[in-house]
Amino acid sequence: MTDTEQLKRHLARLAAYDTNGMYHNDFLLTWDHDEAQIGAIFETARILRSLRKANLSCRVFDSGLAVSLFRDNSTRTRFSFSSAANLLGLAVQDLDEGKSQLAHGETVRETANMVSFMADVIGIRDDMYIGKGNAYMREVAAAVQQGYEAGILEQRPTLVNLQCDIDHPTQSMADALHLIEEFGGVENLRGKKIAMSWAYSPSYGKPLSVPQGIVGLMTRFGMDVVLSHPEGYSIMPEVEEVAIHNAKASGGSFTRTDSMREAFENADIVYPKSWAPFGAMERRTELYAQNDMEGIRTLEKELLAQNARHRGWECDESLMRITRNGKALYLHCLPADITGVSCRQGEVEASVFDRYRDQLYREASYKPYIIAAIIFLSKFADPAATLSQLLDRRAARLLEPISR
Amino acid sequence: MTDTEQLKRHLARLAAYDTNGMYHNDFLLTWDHDEAQIGAIFETARILRSLRKANLSCRVFDSGLAVSLFRDNSTRTRFSFSSAANLLGLAVQDLDEGKSQLAHGETVRETANMVSFMADVIGIRDDMYIGKGNAYMREVAAAVQQGYEAGILEQRPTLVNLQCDIDHPTQSMADALHLIEEFGGVENLRGKKIAMSWAYSPSYGKPLSVPQGIVGLMTRFGMDVVLSHPEGYSIMPEVEEVAIHNAKASGGSFTRTDSMREAFENADIVYPKSWAPFGAMERRTELYAQNDMEGIRTLEKELLAQNARHRGWECDESLMRITRNGKALYLHCLPADITGVSCRQGEVEASVFDRYRDQLYREASYKPYIIAAIIFLSKFADPAATLSQLLDRRAARLLEPISR
Amino acid sequence: MTDTEQLKRHLARLAAYDTNGMYHNDFLLTWDHDEAQIGAIFETARILRSLRKANLSCRVFDSGLAVSLFRDNSTRTRFSFSSAANLLGLAVQDLDEGKSQLAHGETVRETANMVSFMADVIGIRDDMYIGKGNAYMREVAAAVQQGYEAGILEQRPTLVNLQCDIDHPTQSMADALHLIEEFGGVENLRGKKIAMSWAYSPSYGKPLSVPQGIVGLMTRFGMDVVLSHPEGYSIMPEVEEVAIHNAKASGGSFTRTDSMREAFENADIVYPKSWAPFGAMERRTELYAQNDMEGIRTLEKELLAQNARHRGWECDESLMRITRNGKALYLHCLPADITGVSCRQGEVEASVFDRYRDQLYREASYKPYIIAAIIFLSKFADPAATLSQLLDRRAARLLEPISR
Repeated sequence: MTDTEQLKRHLARLAAYDTNGMYHNDFLLTWDHDEAQIGAIFETARILRSLRKANLSCRVFDSGLAVSLFRDNSTRTRFSFSSAANLLGLAVQDLDEGKSQLAHGETVRETANMVSFMADVIGIRDDMYIGKGNAYMREVAAAVQQGYEAGILEQRPTLVNLQCDIDHPTQSMADALHLIEEFGGVENLRGKKIAMSWAYSPSYGKPLSVPQGIVGLMTRFGMDVVLSHPEGYSIMPEVEEVAIHNAKASGGSFTRTDSMREAFENADIVYPKSWAPFGAMERRTELYAQNDMEGIRTLEKELLAQNARHRGWECDESLMRITRNGKALYLHCLPADITGVSCRQGEVEASVFDRYRDQLYREASYKPYIIAAIIFLSKFADPAATLSQLLDRRAARLLEPISR
Repeated sequence: MTDTEQLKRHLARLAAYDTNGMYHNDFLLTWDHDEAQIGAIFETARILRSLRKANLSCRVFDSGLAVSLFRDNSTRTRFSFSSAANLLGLAVQDLDEGKSQLAHGETVRETANMVSFMADVIGIRDDMYIGKGNAYMREVAAAVQQGYEAGILEQRPTLVNLQCDIDHPTQSMADALHLIEEFGGVENLRGKKIAMSWAYSPSYGKPLSVPQGIVGLMTRFGMDVVLSHPEGYSIMPEVEEVAIHNAKASGGSFTRTDSMREAFENADIVYPKSWAPFGAMERRTELYAQNDMEGIRTLEKELLAQNARHRGWECDESLMRITRNGKALYLHCLPADITGVSCRQGEVEASVFDRYRDQLYREASYKPYIIAAIIFLSKFADPAATLSQLLDRRAARLLEPISR
Repeated sequence: MTDTEQLKRHLARLAAYDTNGMYHNDFLLTWDHDEAQIGAIFETARILRSLRKANLSCRVFDSGLAVSLFRDNSTRTRFSFSSAANLLGLAVQDLDEGKSQLAHGETVRETANMVSFMADVIGIRDDMYIGKGNAYMREVAAAVQQGYEAGILEQRPTLVNLQCDIDHPTQSMADALHLIEEFGGVENLRGKKIAMSWAYSPSYGKPLSVPQGIVGLMTRFGMDVVLSHPEGYSIMPEVEEVAIHNAKASGGSFTRTDSMREAFENADIVYPKSWAPFGAMERRTELYAQNDMEGIRTLEKELLAQNARHRGWECDESLMRITRNGKALYLHCLPADITGVSCRQGEVEASVFDRYRDQLYREASYKPYIIAAIIFLSKFADPAATLSQLLDRRAARLLEPISR
């Protein structure tokens, strides 16, 4: 199949999806969106990537701002968001306010409007405190919606969740698109076993949004999703409910185990990654609210000690050997804690990580396109038609030399 | 009247103004510019807003930098400047030098040229020290003028005052455009009473540029401008001179009172806002120059104590009741110190602020267009003709889908 | 000769150069590139400047990122890079990672790929530690090359050295283009004497990359290059080797002296500038590696004391008088340490600096065009043809008003 034929096939598939629910809408949790919408994001991401690869401009905005609000440091997500915004023609403007300044209800409402007069997108990463990040995003979304309805804002900026306390949708969608490409189609994921496993790390307090995002999304494709972690490292119960519900609906399964070995056995895909215990994150949120720095230090020590009891949870060669034909696809959101490389002992053995390095980087490479697809679907009622327009106008991304 | 008819009417009005004085010129103080220029800014801002609302591109620069130099933190003004630059096609590049590094004459001259090789605009906010901010802007303007004349710079960047020690012209112009829209035309402002009043705030050292900008601009429209503040909170005498002069010329009036009640009585518009005493700001500037941190701490304590003696200066419901029909339009440059919301006791009662929230946000929404208008008028000799060109070329801001 | 004729002449010259070695390649050291490539950069820079001056758009990218990584503060180079990127249509995205995070091999490889999914250029300034900066750039270049070959990156970002421990190629190339313009052609540089001289500064630890870049480049044009410095201020021996080799090949000369007076005698061009002793910089690198802060403080004191023994090395009027007709062209990369202006005693007497101010600013003004030329040559196989295309398409940089 030629590239153009493949592109046309993706356009046809996209046209078949009902994306009305994404038009003029935000993207906060994957499970807020039905199968058609999830499918449309994958197709749109692939089409945008193909267009760019063919040196065709994907610029749909002549001007406009993409506001980025990162409450944590982030190189990867920052560049993914910048890349996506730039691909579509938006300029990124960072919002760097102190945390306290944004913490109150009325201030959120005001700031959200003040930065949005010419904003088409607002990307937020806020994953530090349980119960806060996603709630904050909904506050911002409500504020700009109200501003738009009151005629203050002449366009409604789309809110994109770049990681919250509950979900990390652009990560899990990029991971899923990687699987789709690696396995040759979403239909080939059916019946595959994926192990989302806790792994040991010498750092504490890693967000839960990655494992939660993975079990919340991967259960939709008929996969056998296994969540494994030591006792005490549970994820949010409401996300487990989502996973159970999804698995049932998709004809897959969702199971939990406290054995990494059991999870890896015959797994087609493994995703070993550290995270903090949910309960501990809740306690930390309260301690921060009370500004109890002594309590936080005590909690940190406890968490490190708790982690240290599970040093055996490492994705090493012996564990990889028991996966399907010893060749499960290894996933990670990066950066990983690599034993002997980035730390003394970590999530993964160096030789395992090295073997999958190119695939890991490719996994990450889908994120800008996922973000761009989400923005695109929120702006165009008939995305397949508009993407065809981009194909037909044949504007070059990098000037095409005229041969002499 | 249809949108297009309205747009044509604004274009006709703009064409009637002589804007030669703004072409290739800076914008530092509203009172440096005559009535035609002020009128042209309002018309240009409205036309740009209408074009954007109609999804028409206002991009006039294919490339070029807008240099932003903010010596204080600023979310609102930063986003207004970014939005304006982006609307016209410029990319913002922040200049983040330490204060000391920019403080000397030769360094200003050098840095101004070094950042301007491809700069079309330089926006500066420098409102911290009395006698410094505006002077600094003039130094930068002189430096780039000299660089342009010497053939070093191939274009002369326009300097835009985004707030100095004397004036806050993009704020006062946005406020005025809000009034024009609310009252249905600048001619309807004639005879209206506006109270620019000091109000209590638990923070000290708020800039004087807002009240100064307001009395310096609003006196030009035939309004009855009343400036009220407790004894000791005088604004700069030279700005009062400007206000007196303007009021006389426009057939309005400018009066001062030390009673907030008197100012609010039958007022059509009220602008209650805290600011620091001018004399104290002068002392602070000297203390900083001498690096006298002990003196600064003492001054801060004095100022807070002085403020605390005027806790009664709050824009509450009882004061609002004595305004014209109890319905004066409430203005603020935001963020406001709202009693019981952002502080224990502040500039305005929460119920008053809440009632005007949408209007306050709309007031702020004019600022990006005012900044864009100033830049536009400095770049085009016949702005009405060029804006007509933008209308006629019909380039879309967001790609217009072709219906299938 | 009209501007158009001149432009055509430059296009013809450019067309005659073989630039294949720059196509899809990085720019790390001027001596990695042959005479044709160096000549092509000058011609391309001049053509881009002429196009922009004629209000013609040089935009060749519709979208794409220019990643900037500055490990030191830098206003001048930052704005030059931003200007160049913007001129060609790229958006700048800063990479602000802690030094430690980027310091390790695997992390460099990963980060380089993570930021490059949509990057067309990566500009790096890393001049702090001897033996590190250039090596780091080569690591990044290797990483993105590998990512490109593995199909992870869909385009290969060009790496541009914005200053390393060895060379400062965009500075020396801008300096050289300034000389070419001032002397009316590169052929007129033949036989000219240029003094690259150490000068006293009250600060220590200034990078060696400027003098090294100058002797490494200027020796290619048949000039008599004299490097003068007090004993103990040697530059890297391998760069001296480059200079000796270049001088031989070009028919010029490269000599060293410990007398500033000897260097200035009958010089046509003088470049007096402070730098740190190479050996001391090597020691500092080791001390930082060992985190020996006490050792660093001791070294700093030593260096300041060592500098102070050479206070006489100032470019004053008496020294200028012994240059060719007392009128040598004075160069500096800026900012200079000016006696009585930016410090009590420094590199240059105020009256000398003042006399050359406009020329110094013009010297700096070439840097954005040099950077843009380097990027341009890495993206187009037939740069003269593509630049002709830009001339022919006649897209305006600033909208051309249609006369009514």
